[in-house]
Amino acid sequence: MTGRRPAEPGMTIAQVETPALIVDLDAMEANIKALAARVAAYPSVRVTPHAKAHKSVEIARRQMAAGAARMCCQNVAEAEAMAAGGINSILLSNEIIGVEKAKRLAQVARTAKVGVCVDHVDQVKVLADAAREADITFDVLIEIDVGMGRCGVTSAAEAVALAKDVAKHKNLHFSGLQAYHGTAQHLRHPEERVAAIAKAAAFARETADALRTAGLPCDVIAGAGTGSYENEMMSGVYNELQCGSYVFKDADYGRNDTAYPFRNALFILASVISAAAPGRAVCDAGLKSLSAESGLPVAYEAPGVTYIKATDEHGTLQLSPQATVKPGDKLKLIPGHCDPTVNLHDWLVACRGDKVEAVWPVARGW
Amino acid sequence: MTGRRPAEPGMTIAQVETPALIVDLDAMEANIKALAARVAAYPSVRVTPHAKAHKSVEIARRQMAAGAARMCCQNVAEAEAMAAGGINSILLSNEIIGVEKAKRLAQVARTAKVGVCVDHVDQVKVLADAAREADITFDVLIEIDVGMGRCGVTSAAEAVALAKDVAKHKNLHFSGLQAYHGTAQHLRHPEERVAAIAKAAAFARETADALRTAGLPCDVIAGAGTGSYENEMMSGVYNELQCGSYVFKDADYGRNDTAYPFRNALFILASVISAAAPGRAVCDAGLKSLSAESGLPVAYEAPGVTYIKATDEHGTLQLSPQATVKPGDKLKLIPGHCDPTVNLHDWLVACRGDKVEAVWPVARGW
Repeated sequence: MTGRRPAEPGMTIAQVETPALIVDLDAMEANIKALAARVAAYPSVRVTPHAKAHKSVEIARRQMAAGAARMCCQNVAEAEAMAAGGINSILLSNEIIGVEKAKRLAQVARTAKVGVCVDHVDQVKVLADAAREADITFDVLIEIDVGMGRCGVTSAAEAVALAKDVAKHKNLHFSGLQAYHGTAQHLRHPEERVAAIAKAAAFARETADALRTAGLPCDVIAGAGTGSYENEMMSGVYNELQCGSYVFKDADYGRNDTAYPFRNALFILASVISAAAPGRAVCDAGLKSLSAESGLPVAYEAPGVTYIKATDEHGTLQLSPQATVKPGDKLKLIPGHCDPTVNLHDWLVACRGDKVEAVWPVARGW
Repeated sequence: MTGRRPAEPGMTIAQVETPALIVDLDAMEANIKALAARVAAYPSVRVTPHAKAHKSVEIARRQMAAGAARMCCQNVAEAEAMAAGGINSILLSNEIIGVEKAKRLAQVARTAKVGVCVDHVDQVKVLADAAREADITFDVLIEIDVGMGRCGVTSAAEAVALAKDVAKHKNLHFSGLQAYHGTAQHLRHPEERVAAIAKAAAFARETADALRTAGLPCDVIAGAGTGSYENEMMSGVYNELQCGSYVFKDADYGRNDTAYPFRNALFILASVISAAAPGRAVCDAGLKSLSAESGLPVAYEAPGVTYIKATDEHGTLQLSPQATVKPGDKLKLIPGHCDPTVNLHDWLVACRGDKVEAVWPVARGW
């Protein structure tokens, strides 16, 4: 069940109950502006930010106001939340298969323009049935596997066959290609990312050419994320950039060797609950309030404090002699990976400087 | 916000929306009985199961009915949920420091007997103030660090000093020692666990002796978990066993080399959403519905299917030639670690055989 609100507007950060997620609004707004400004130099390219990073209608509204063309979602619950919050164009950048999920997505399409991805004829049939029944139209993107070895067809010929199948259904509109290279986001060196996205773009271009030859033009070639978007943006192939993490940044992106124009805007606020042995303290933010699969969180503006171990409800901190830490102290942690960290929380505590400005719900679930 | 219920009573498992957590009630009930039966041979030892594994009042009630002396909780929200569900004795087997959290715990103590741990005088003061203000009494355990290097004082002398401080407060009752060795749970070889718990028990005994000498007898010496409880049980020192995971088991405990008497009772039900390349499929259960920090989940009764990679909303499955998997198929996954996996969900779908018997809320939050 939904956990209690950790704060109310008007409080100071020191009054927020821990563990809690703190959003630095100034930094977040700067990040939204920075991406919009960067992409503005490429008039054929649109920003379609990914809601899976924040699961928040409030943040999506700010991204749309800054010029985003639509919001990406990764599951039906996110799409439902975005539509309920007034977002009028949504791409479910993922495959769905269940009849009930397709019906729910068709309901979303009654108030918002909805796109969705396929890589198999069985998904096409489920979507077509739901769209016909609800008397709506889905825009359909064929997902192609551009190098991450997850979803997506693996040849242009398969994409053409699948697009032809889509085009047979009156309530489905073939719209283009989903060509997301997730693993490229986290390659450490710029030249590795250049090579990965060049290969991805070449396959997307080849597939789009084959589709055009078959009389099925691609309006959309979508992909990219925070780690590689500059490459897709300059490829001359991609025209939708699905960056998500840029809005918050995280410790993993912080370790990349290029200087992205983004600032840390998301923190786990934790309390020190124990400091019983020299050189060590323990805080109340562990695996149930942060995700450590992309690396441990990093203590923010806390010299000499290193987060060294996450267990269920505890984070163990190593203290160098300069660190002065006692039970009751609060500290901010930069999450290792923002998306699954947000998913652990029910609330985002939106702060301006030291003051809580709003408390936003997180649209959890599937 | 709370995600939608993935099922209703009377459905078959095939009808449950994915990803969802499935509890095999027959296996869970057998696990609860098995631990109770094993510990019954040691009349001085009590089972005090850990609610952090399941966060469910329904399961706690079944554990109490099977003879548990009290329920352990790891945070105040769990304690609140247990008390609201009628559990009348609770040990918060953790330190808390915030004034608000202490006040909330004091409210819990109006309907349930409440114990709580300390390892620092600052915690004692916060608890004493809250207890006095609410006119209740907390039982207080001193946590000692018996080898895991997390919370807990590190010498008998510190424990005696802290217990004397506790005893000064009219609304605090010094009750004993929390001597939990978390890392011992996951040592792979029985002789490693024997050695770790022998050392832990020796320090607990030494500390209890020092306390008795100082006129502060320890009623409770508490600790243990699913991986090592036989050792604590037979130590002659411990008298409360805080096993949590036994109720569900998980893939990590499944890899231990001793044959615990417990069965897998918790599964992530997932749908195959993509199978676009030979030898590979993708399901809808990734890092937002399972925790992979203790290892990846294991496909259950699915020959030739291996879960090889977890990303946010996707699980990549490697298929051997014998595996027949197509989009829409559902499969059960044994979680790598049950506690943080439960924490990702709002609902437990309790099943008897193939039928959904109940849908239970998960008490998330802090």
